[in-house]
Amino acid sequence: MDFSSKLLENAVYEISQLPGIGKRTALRLALHLLRQPKDQTERLSFALQNLRNEIKYCKNCHNISDVDLCEICANPKREESLVCVVEDIRDVMAIENTGQYKGLYHVLGGKISPLDGIGPSDLNIHSLVEKVKEGVVKEIIFALSSTMEGDTTNFYIYKQVSPFNIKTSTIARGIAVGDELEYADEVTLGRSILNRIPFENSLKS
Amino acid sequence: MDFSSKLLENAVYEISQLPGIGKRTALRLALHLLRQPKDQTERLSFALQNLRNEIKYCKNCHNISDVDLCEICANPKREESLVCVVEDIRDVMAIENTGQYKGLYHVLGGKISPLDGIGPSDLNIHSLVEKVKEGVVKEIIFALSSTMEGDTTNFYIYKQVSPFNIKTSTIARGIAVGDELEYADEVTLGRSILNRIPFENSLKS
Repeated sequence: MDFSSKLLENAVYEISQLPGIGKRTALRLALHLLRQPKDQTERLSFALQNLRNEIKYCKNCHNISDVDLCEICANPKREESLVCVVEDIRDVMAIENTGQYKGLYHVLGGKISPLDGIGPSDLNIHSLVEKVKEGVVKEIIFALSSTMEGDTTNFYIYKQVSPFNIKTSTIARGIAVGDELEYADEVTLGRSILNRIPFENSLKS
Repeated sequence: MDFSSKLLENAVYEISQLPGIGKRTALRLALHLLRQPKDQTERLSFALQNLRNEIKYCKNCHNISDVDLCEICANPKREESLVCVVEDIRDVMAIENTGQYKGLYHVLGGKISPLDGIGPSDLNIHSLVEKVKEGVVKEIIFALSSTMEGDTTNFYIYKQVSPFNIKTSTIARGIAVGDELEYADEVTLGRSILNRIPFENSLKS
């Protein structure tokens, strides 16, 4: 693209560095901001910088939090012996929305992915193993996405914590509630048959 | 969405004020910035604020420009008697890319759209009429999108400039080069038949 303004070109370039945003979308967003009052751009810039510079993570579960210990970890009603391992804050939000989980979380901050240059030391794995060593944790639930990276990460953590006497489990994979069997993919359907549960258990929820 | 951090909630809110970006995408973008080095967020914020605060418009055609008179208006080789009326800088860029146009532009900054609260006085129409009055402009080419708003805007300007002795034209609508007739919409196909051109003319380009 051939811009008539360096200011515009630079703004479009920086916006298009965001994932999933190409040059055309970036130009559309920049032109939108130009049509809005100046303070909208100011509030956006300030919010982004503030987030990036002031962000804190819970010292226990590494979730994003404005205080040292996040609300979930600080809640005495949650079971601290049960820890659900997730990738990022979106997974915490999704599980919290179900209202079904009463344990704590451990946010890894990503998955092991050699292709993207993300190794175990880039993730919050060490502190999880330390928590297990201390003996407070009785069960770890793996809730990473079931991709190769997710499985690798699960297995890496599993090897680290298996010497200690704890339970490990992984969230159930199967046909979504309300879905038709004929449209399910084979891997999911296969897993849901292999990991079938006693019928009486299905009546509980 | 229930955030564990006000900083994150605020950033997500501000990002989701951009057109076409919902809360989920905004959260994805915010988390992306958190995983990148601080200076990426700094460069983005700075570029946006710089654009919004320092932006200048060409005093002749109102296109975005870092100097008083944009490159196109300042180019003595362009025909100043021919003015193409467009909505915004994206249209200028698209027409410039064709390499077919040697006149100047006039950027309106939008279209008349009562539903969005945009009236004639919100657009750069007055300065266009002034240019026509001064007698330098001999022909105006309307190149707005062929929507109701575009047609209204064309007609409004047409009424303003018609008392003066100038030519007005509109860009040709028709089947795109290389497109199959059977897939064209009826309105476009209808117009392309009504506005057919002498065959010899089609051999020129």
